[in-house]
Formats: sequence, structure tokens, C-alpha cells
Amino acid sequence: MAAGNETPLVGIIMGSESDMPAMEACMKQLDEFGVPYEVKVASAHRRPAEVHDWASSAVERGLRVIVAAAGKAAHLGGVVAAYTPLPVIAVPMKTSDLGGLDSLLSMVQMPSGVPVACVAINGAKNAAILAVQMLGTGDEAMRRKIVDMKASMAEA
Amino acid sequence: MAAGNETPLVGIIMGSESDMPAMEACMKQLDEFGVPYEVKVASAHRRPAEVHDWASSAVERGLRVIVAAAGKAAHLGGVVAAYTPLPVIAVPMKTSDLGGLDSLLSMVQMPSGVPVACVAINGAKNAAILAVQMLGTGDEAMRRKIVDMKASMAEA
Amino acid sequence: MAAGNETPLVGIIMGSESDMPAMEACMKQLDEFGVPYEVKVASAHRRPAEVHDWASSAVERGLRVIVAAAGKAAHLGGVVAAYTPLPVIAVPMKTSDLGGLDSLLSMVQMPSGVPVACVAINGAKNAAILAVQMLGTGDEAMRRKIVDMKASMAEA
Amino acid sequence: MAAGNETPLVGIIMGSESDMPAMEACMKQLDEFGVPYEVKVASAHRRPAEVHDWASSAVERGLRVIVAAAGKAAHLGGVVAAYTPLPVIAVPMKTSDLGGLDSLLSMVQMPSGVPVACVAINGAKNAAILAVQMLGTGDEAMRRKIVDMKASMAEA
Amino acid sequence: MAAGNETPLVGIIMGSESDMPAMEACMKQLDEFGVPYEVKVASAHRRPAEVHDWASSAVERGLRVIVAAAGKAAHLGGVVAAYTPLPVIAVPMKTSDLGGLDSLLSMVQMPSGVPVACVAINGAKNAAILAVQMLGTGDEAMRRKIVDMKASMAEA
Amino acid sequence: MAAGNETPLVGIIMGSESDMPAMEACMKQLDEFGVPYEVKVASAHRRPAEVHDWASSAVERGLRVIVAAAGKAAHLGGVVAAYTPLPVIAVPMKTSDLGGLDSLLSMVQMPSGVPVACVAINGAKNAAILAVQMLGTGDEAMRRKIVDMKASMAEA
Amino acid sequence: MAAGNETPLVGIIMGSESDMPAMEACMKQLDEFGVPYEVKVASAHRRPAEVHDWASSAVERGLRVIVAAAGKAAHLGGVVAAYTPLPVIAVPMKTSDLGGLDSLLSMVQMPSGVPVACVAINGAKNAAILAVQMLGTGDEAMRRKIVDMKASMAEA
Amino acid sequence: MAAGNETPLVGIIMGSESDMPAMEACMKQLDEFGVPYEVKVASAHRRPAEVHDWASSAVERGLRVIVAAAGKAAHLGGVVAAYTPLPVIAVPMKTSDLGGLDSLLSMVQMPSGVPVACVAINGAKNAAILAVQMLGTGDEAMRRKIVDMKASMAEA
Repeated sequence: MAAGNETPLVGIIMGSESDMPAMEACMKQLDEFGVPYEVKVASAHRRPAEVHDWASSAVERGLRVIVAAAGKAAHLGGVVAAYTPLPVIAVPMKTSDLGGLDSLLSMVQMPSGVPVACVAINGAKNAAILAVQMLGTGDEAMRRKIVDMKASMAEA
Repeated sequence: MAAGNETPLVGIIMGSESDMPAMEACMKQLDEFGVPYEVKVASAHRRPAEVHDWASSAVERGLRVIVAAAGKAAHLGGVVAAYTPLPVIAVPMKTSDLGGLDSLLSMVQMPSGVPVACVAINGAKNAAILAVQMLGTGDEAMRRKIVDMKASMAEA
Repeated sequence: MAAGNETPLVGIIMGSESDMPAMEACMKQLDEFGVPYEVKVASAHRRPAEVHDWASSAVERGLRVIVAAAGKAAHLGGVVAAYTPLPVIAVPMKTSDLGGLDSLLSMVQMPSGVPVACVAINGAKNAAILAVQMLGTGDEAMRRKIVDMKASMAEA
Repeated sequence: MAAGNETPLVGIIMGSESDMPAMEACMKQLDEFGVPYEVKVASAHRRPAEVHDWASSAVERGLRVIVAAAGKAAHLGGVVAAYTPLPVIAVPMKTSDLGGLDSLLSMVQMPSGVPVACVAINGAKNAAILAVQMLGTGDEAMRRKIVDMKASMAEA
Repeated sequence: MAAGNETPLVGIIMGSESDMPAMEACMKQLDEFGVPYEVKVASAHRRPAEVHDWASSAVERGLRVIVAAAGKAAHLGGVVAAYTPLPVIAVPMKTSDLGGLDSLLSMVQMPSGVPVACVAINGAKNAAILAVQMLGTGDEAMRRKIVDMKASMAEA
Repeated sequence: MAAGNETPLVGIIMGSESDMPAMEACMKQLDEFGVPYEVKVASAHRRPAEVHDWASSAVERGLRVIVAAAGKAAHLGGVVAAYTPLPVIAVPMKTSDLGGLDSLLSMVQMPSGVPVACVAINGAKNAAILAVQMLGTGDEAMRRKIVDMKASMAEA
Repeated sequence: MAAGNETPLVGIIMGSESDMPAMEACMKQLDEFGVPYEVKVASAHRRPAEVHDWASSAVERGLRVIVAAAGKAAHLGGVVAAYTPLPVIAVPMKTSDLGGLDSLLSMVQMPSGVPVACVAINGAKNAAILAVQMLGTGDEAMRRKIVDMKASMAEA
Repeated sequence: MAAGNETPLVGIIMGSESDMPAMEACMKQLDEFGVPYEVKVASAHRRPAEVHDWASSAVERGLRVIVAAAGKAAHLGGVVAAYTPLPVIAVPMKTSDLGGLDSLLSMVQMPSGVPVACVAINGAKNAAILAVQMLGTGDEAMRRKIVDMKASMAEA
């Protein structure tokens, strides 16, 4: 699923349809930034080959940043990061029993060699901002979007 | 690496050479049971294709149970479980900062559809016993090994 | 209580009637697999002799795998494991105060010599899948059920 | 093992020989109080029948209070409490990975109907004091020992 | 407040009126046992002198066991234990933010010399049972109440 | 024990002699500020009357701020705060099992009506700085000490 | 925003409008004490310059104590403390995922040199009391307010 | 301090000299990648103006990514992120009492609008890799460094 007709720069993947409501803030923020993205729902555990293919072809599809959201033993960020050189932003999903501490530790504590960039539990909007900040390292127009957003926040 | 010249029934995989000292209790216990096993060191994140191949071919190599040990954001058990129908026993490794709580939650909180059988933090010996218990569901000789071990413990 | 007229292969025991709603996903999954099971409700603390008898006779009743669900200071899995050579899958129940962290640690941190195979908090469905994976170590038909289920998940 | 030639009033049981150093403070404090006790080492998981027999016969052996020390998934207190009407004081042992949080939750979070009296992690000395306080509910001489000890502490 | 016209043997104290609903299970269980008790509501922090007087005179009022319930930084059990030689059962109250982990650690981790007997978070009923077990160390009729209750549970 | 011959403004109390090494940073910082203080070692549980007297007379002795350090179920801050209108700074001591999480929660989670001002685990130096900040609310010379210290830090 | 026409002595700052309901207990308590205060809503992260200006000018505006409330990675207390010599009381806000443990640790664990005075999660009323206790170190009328409040609590 | 004579692309800031040993793995990895960087030691709390100036001028100095390392109530990442549009990678430092859980939550749980990209506790090497991944979003040569590193890891 791709949003808009521009080549997506950000790929959003989530482990379950149930993560969609929490992740809508990510898509909405990217829409506000005017940054094209694609969205994929696939579990690293239930549909590993599909995740593998999606992650392995991310560069050639034109993606430059990946956002991966998952809950519980949340391996999706790490699995995607294993198959792509792109930076992977991980969004740990809140869980009904441990509040998301499980998702958080499963994502942030990545072993040496394969980082993910973890944001807060259910930090979907921040994942979008961070994605644009990353794009801004090589794209002045992207960085300006962040500068403008920060100015808006300061005035709000 | 395979131990002995019988076809291995248990495949032991660990994410790092640094897990080996803690996992030796697993191999020693399998040796005491006389159960052949093979040992593999490969990170799910740093060498994903190798883990994928090892897990995908586990059944055809004759393995019947897998033991996966990893630490921190310990995805190895889940990644292996995604690629094989065999039961996967997960051994969360103790960590120097959070004591292994990160490894434990990353392993035990597997989402619906793809379980792992988690044992205690650094529970390497128990992983071996559990592996033989699993084999014992269809092999009377294996179950007898457990019965005998329990009798020995009760007398010790 | 036994479900169906085949000899049960899986014995499900839970510490309280209040665990039943959460555990129905286990029975439903076993029903889908067509694997016969029996269900027992008995607290390890309030009715220890009954648990003792049930666990001690599990092998002779034909059971090959046990699933034990309990909450809080969840000793049921360990108590059953002490009295049977069969593999015991432990399902820690979510609790209203600590979210199930208490149940989880009480189950997964089993001391050396007597493992249980712990799944996620309230991981009832996964307990059923793991039980069939265990049976699959010695029964090709059981393993095929897992292979088929994994194929279904990948297509879903 | 019984200490002294009086009938023991307190039964101390621990899950492993490795708990002995931490538990010596309990015995030393009972010695200072002049309260006779017996000591037993037996794991609830590895030697369940022995624990069952010890707990079931505790009343007829003359014990009036039990102290149970164990670590990790520490079921010993609950298992003993299931088999005796005597009050059971639980001492959660410090663990090398989670610091004893596992032992503590496994002991203190007992479900309804079968309490244990939990003291601090490695609280061996306090277990002895609490045992004598319990005995003091029906024995003025015992209560006086506590009164005297408190007076000594206040002056120290 | 004293319940019934017999001399209370158990003194129940709680830090706030808001603890009353959770503690009613304690009183109900003591009623079922036919054990007379008194009830006091007073915060160790807001009304320290009153708590001091209540605890200091507990022995002379005829109390033999104290149950103290409090939440958050739950000092009530420790404060009462400082002022009486009687055994003090602590009931950590569930809290709306940390689930009661704060209450639990504030109660159970008592330093050397002054124990409390901690039960589970909101373990009000178990506090009553434990109180009667303590009384049973010197009173055969009390112990029989526990034996009977355990028999009832086993048959339930 | 009072340091120097000026009337102490800050009273430091700690639950055990074993807290002294960690608390020396507090005294050293007060010495650097030139703020007179007194030091007391007394456990809220083992020597409650002494703590009561010390806290109750703090105002008339001329103290204006209290620093209370304790570990485990650390009630000292709360107990002192119950008996004095002075502000109480609580220093949770690091513990060997739970790292000080127990001390921290026992101190910081004070119920409504009786606050303590909690600093970091083993935050002895910061307790001294905070004490002087408090004194600075009504004493320009004290506030200047803080201003100067902050300037020094910025230049260091 | 300043309440009343006296010069505010206490400055209350919070990171978000969503903190206001929880913080109203602070303002209400200050109203009851008759202590003038001002209220500011500004995030340390979204509006850093505004927070900087507010904190840097706090002394010259006449403030003597600051109360800072924030949630999650709650930096507001520390950021304000970095820019003012005044004592800063931190109120960690309850969070929907981790219950406020994140806010608490982000506030209380301040590094050496720059303390905050942390109260309980959502401890807004206690923040007000503590503020007046601080003012009371140099103002007998303020201390009397605390003495009176404590007397009222003891009688309630 | 700037390393090499190229314009630094990555700015590394840490809260204390004591963070340097853990952060050397970051610099070493950047050296291996041949990516120029500058290093700054300044506490967000003790030297806020200096941190403010450093962060505010980061863009004009030519930095494109920032790495911020701090421990305990680790505000440095958030404070820097408040003053720059650049992406900020946060490295939570291990702590001696809570193992780094405090640093982690203080960094990762950033509120909406101002993200940081958090890596594992003491994840200094991964911070360097992530920095280069970010640079790689707009710089093919940088992305190739990651591709090569991943190939090396897979062969190691």
C-alpha cells in the first residue's frame, strides 16, 4: 500500500492490523510534512518471508527510512534492520499486561552491529518527525520542514 | 558443528560466542543423556541469511528440537521459530545492565501464532532437560531418561 | 473433564475457574488441530493432593504434554513438573496489580533440574501450538499440522 | 537435622545447600533466643515427595512455625503451606540476575486461601524474629524474648 | 472500633478510609473463623501519635496479632512493628500508578531487627488466615480452624 | 553529634552506621558551603522513640531543614516528616539486591499530606545542595552560595 | 498567569495542558495556605526558550520556590533547575503505559550538582505543602501554616 | 574538540567525563567508517548555557547528526533535541544502581514533538552505525559503508 503517487521515501511496517490505530499519528504527521510513504502490515514471525522480501528490496524501491512498529516480543525492527542498510525507527507498542516495557526492551536493546532508532512507547508521531530529521541530513528542504515545525510548536 | 557421529536430534544455536560459557551446561546435560546435538553460533541480526538457512533446513537435517540462546533484544528464538515447525526452546542470557530482564521479555512475550518455550535466564541445563522431555513425547527411551534423572535427583 | 472420546494427549490444568476465559483460546486451538485434551481446574495450593494425583498419573492416563496456567505466585507449572516426566508448558496469567510480571517470574525462573516451557502472559493459544510442536517431535502428522498452520498464517 | 536435644518448635527448610550461608543468620538468631529448631534442605521441585512428607508431618513432629527459604521461581514456601496448617515464613533468596525480585514475587504473591508470611530478600534474621513473635502469641516467655531484644536494640 | 463483645485478639489498622473496601475480606474471614478483632483507621504519617498510642498499648489491650494495611510509601506496618512486640502482618495496597509495587517494597523489605509478615498485594483474606495460623501456634482450637478451612478448600 | 560550634541549621539523620560512607558527600558539601549541621544515626524501626524525640525537638533545637537517609523499606524520611513541620529531604540508599528501587519507592511515594523531598539514590551531595536552596528561600546569603556554586560548575 | 494580586512566591510550571487536572490539587492547597503563586504551561522540549526565560528570571520576579510537573521523559524539573538557584520541586506525572515510573526516574535521578526535590507520582498536593515547608525555613508565618495543617490532620 | 581536519558531520556530546570510556566505541566506529566528528563534554544541568550554544549552532557548524550520551535522569538528548533540527541519537549510560533503566526511560520516552533516536544502554558503537545510516539517506557513499559493514559481519 502506497500513499500518494510520489515514490515513497519512508516505509512503515507494523506487525499487526491492531497496531494501525496507534500508528495513524505517524502517517498523519508524514502527510502534514508532505513526505510520501508506503504502509505494510506483516508479522516478522507469522510472515517472515514477506518481511524479508519487503526489507531486502527497500533500497531498490526507493525507500530511505523505515519505521517499524510492533508489540510484546517486538522483533520486527531488528528483523528489518538485519535485511537493509537503511536506518530503522522502532516504535514499541503499548501492551495490555506490561504496558509496553516488553516491546520497548525488545526493540531498544539491540546487540552490537545492528542498531534501531527507538522512540517512545506508542511514539508514532515522533517516529514521523525523526524520519524527516533523518532525511534532512541530506536534504535541505526536509530540514526546513523540521525547522518550521519547531517554530510552530514554540508559538503554539 | 555436530557433536558425536550420530545424527543430531537437538540443534543448539546462540547469538554470540560470548554465550558459549553459559550454554555449556546445556551441551553437558545432553551428553549425559546421550542425546546427539549440533551447535551453531550465528546472530539473527548480524548474519540473518545464515540463521534463515540453518532454521529452514533444520527438519531435513533431522533435528527435532531447537535450543536458541541470546541476550539483550533477543530475537534469535523468535526468528528461528518463524522458519521452522520444530519446537524452539529459548534461553535468555543474563545481561550486564538489566540482569537479563530484557532478554527474558524479548523471548517469552512472543505474539500469537509463533510460540517459543522459554526457560529461566541462563537456564542452559534446563533447556537440555526440556528438549529431552519434548523428544520423550514420542520416544519411550527418551522419557525414561527423564524418569531416571528425576529419580537420581530425589535421591541425591 | 475430557473433550471428545479419543484418549487425551494434552492435559490442561489451571489454578482457578477464573483462568478459564483466558485459557479457552488454548482449547479452541487444540480443537482446530484435532488434538484431544482433558481439562482440570485445581489449585496447587488449595488442593495439593488432587494436583499431585493428577500429575503423578498423567503418563499412565496417556497424556504426553501438559499445559499449566496460573496467576500471581504461580506455582502450578512447577508443582506439576515435579511430579511428572512429561514436558510442562506454563501459561502465566495476567494479574490486576502487576500485569502478570509476578506470574511470569514465578513460572519461567524455574531452578535447575525441573524446567517448564513458559509462553507469554496469557499466551493460551501459543501454548496449544507449542504442545502440538512437542508432539510433532515424534509424530509426523502432528508436525504437518504445524506446517499447515504456518502456511495459513503466511497467506492470511 | 535437629539442633539441640529439645523438641524443635521451628522447622527451617531451604531449597538448596547454596541457601545455607544466607540462612545461617536465621539459625544464629534462634540460638540467641534459645528456641530449638530443625533444618532441612530439600527442593520442592527436585525432591517433592520428601518435601511433602516433611511438611505433612510437621505438626505431629511438634513444629509450630516453619521458615522456608528459596530462590528464583521460589515455590517452596507455597508448597509447604499447602501441606500444613502451620504458619509459613518465606525468605526470598537474592538471585544473581534479577536481584531476588523473582524470588520475592514468587513467594509473596500467594493466591487466596494459602498465605505465606514473606520477609525481605535474604531476610534470614528477621525470619527468626518473626517466628518467635508468632510463638509469642500463645507463650508469654517467647513474647518476653522479643520485648528484651527490642529493648537491647533501642539501647545499642 | 471493636467487632463483637469478646476481647479482640487481632487488631486491624489501615492507613486510610480508602483501604476499607479492600480490607473487608480480612474482616469477613475473621468473622467466619469467629475470631474477635478491632479495626482502626489512622495514617502513620498524618496521625503518628495516634498510631503510636494504638501500637504501644496493643499488648495490654489483649491483642495478639496485628494486621496493617497501607499503600504507596507504606510505612504503617513498620511503624507499628517498631512499637509492639506482637507479630505484624502487612497488606500492601494496590496503587493506581505502580500497581502496588511501591506498597509491596515499602512493606516487605524491612531492615534487620524489625520484621513484618508481608502477604500479597491486596491480600486481605490471606492476612486473616495468617493471623489465625499465628494464633494457632499456641492455641489448638485456632489451629483446628485452619485445618478445617483447608479441608473445605480441598473439597470445594 | 554536631559539627562546629554554630547552631546547626541542617539535621542529618541516617538509619544505620552503614549509611555513613555514602552520606559523607552530604556533610562535605555542607562544610564547603559553611552551613552548620548535626548528624544522628538512629533507625526508625529499631530505635523509634529516639527518632521521635529527635524529630519532635528539631524546631526548638534550631534546625531548619532535615536530611534523612535510609535503605530498603526506608521509612525514616516519612517517620521524621510525621513529627516535624520542617522540610525533610530523603536520600534513598542503594541496596545490594534491588539496587535501591526499594528505598526509592519507600521514600518518594509518600501519601497525601506529608511530603518528603526525594533526591536520587545515594544522592547525598545533592541533598546538601537542596538543603541550602531551601534555606535560600529566606536567606539571601544562602541563595548566593548556590549562585556561586552554579557559576563554578559552569566554568569547571 | 498569576493568581491573586500579591507577588507570587511559588512558580508552578507544567509541561502540557494535559497536566493541569492533576496539578489543580497543588493550586488548591496553595490557595488554602494563602500563598500566592503563578502558573505557566510550557514544554521544556517544544518551547525551550520560553522555559529558559521563565526559569532564568524567576528570582527577579520574586519567586522563591518552583514546582515543575511533567510526564514521560520528564526533563522539565531538571531544565528549570539548571537555570535557577531556587529549589525546584518535581512532580512526576502518571503515564498511561508505564504508570509514571518513567516520569519518576527521569526526575528523581538527577546527577550530582543539580538536585530537584521529587515528590510522589501525581503528588500535586504534597508539592504545595513542601513548597510552604521550604518557605517556612525563613518565615515563621509559613512554618505555622504547616504546624496548623498537621494539627488539623491529626484531628481529622 | 574535533577529530581530523575535515568538517565534522557528527557531533558527539556526553554529560560527563565519566561517560568517555563507554563512548570510545562510538568514536572508534566512526574512525573506521572515516566519518569526521567532534566531541564535547558538557552536562545539560551543570553547564546549560554551553549545551545550549553547542546545540543551537550545530547546523551552522556543519553537523548533520548528533549523538548524546548521558546517565541517570539523562536529559542531555532531549535538551539538545529541543535546540536543533538535527536528528539526535541518544545513548543511555549504564548506572551503578538501576543498571541504566533510569537513563533509558529518561531518554526514550520523549514526549510528542521532539523525538530522540534511542539505542541500547551503553550502545555507543551502534550509535555510530546509526549516525552513518542517517547520513546514508542522502549520501550514497555513506550507505555503501553500511552495506560493506553488513557484508563483513555476515562473513565474520
